[in-house]
Amino acid sequence: MADINAIAQQFTQFYYTTFDANRSNLQSLYRDASMLTWEGTPIQGASAIVEKLVGLPFSKVEHKVTTLDAQPSSPTIASLIVSVTGLLVVDGGENALQFSQTFQLIPDGGSYYVLNDIFRLNYGA
Amino acid sequence: MADINAIAQQFTQFYYTTFDANRSNLQSLYRDASMLTWEGTPIQGASAIVEKLVGLPFSKVEHKVTTLDAQPSSPTIASLIVSVTGLLVVDGGENALQFSQTFQLIPDGGSYYVLNDIFRLNYGA
Repeated sequence: MADINAIAQQFTQFYYTTFDANRSNLQSLYRDASMLTWEGTPIQGASAIVEKLVGLPFSKVEHKVTTLDAQPSSPTIASLIVSVTGLLVVDGGENALQFSQTFQLIPDGGSYYVLNDIFRLNYGA
Repeated sequence: MADINAIAQQFTQFYYTTFDANRSNLQSLYRDASMLTWEGTPIQGASAIVEKLVGLPFSKVEHKVTTLDAQPSSPTIASLIVSVTGLLVVDGGENALQFSQTFQLIPDGGSYYVLNDIFRLNYGA
């Protein structure tokens, strides 16, 4: 699964770097069929997803990936599931928030788009 | 997505109840093609997966689901991605561990099997 892991790593690095620099640039990663569930709220379609992400109530954010796992998600196409856990530092705050995020990436002309995206903050025990 | 959410809820309830009662009974949920990534270790196939789960070094375990999200994962079949965060209480210990788990469920003759399973403990910030 070396390729899968390399793709997952490349994707997450691009995704979080872009998210932290300028969230509006994430739109090219989504399509009309794409789904985001953000803290339990379902949103569909690239425009609505990016509108949601851009409207989040923090101006400065930094994602730090702690764990990254990937698996092929279909016997017929080279899609993959990517599961991330990590820390979110918001507006330079001292307390990093733990998060979990799951993506399904679908191959599309030499690249991938995000069909599924599920994001959750993990609050302490 | 009412059906999706109901299926996800029914599945996770069955999965964690069975896990906590007798892990060896989880074998029927997996197939030869099933993949588990457990704390970064990849395992394939129902027998190997259940062997791994049964061999985990705790005798008594209780899963408490905190959040549960589901999305359809394919335009052609009724598969779904289920993403769970929760707490794991091991051997009656006082400190619950946070975990994240992602499944992909594939329809199979009126029921579902687990094609993808990714499990991670989330350690504190």
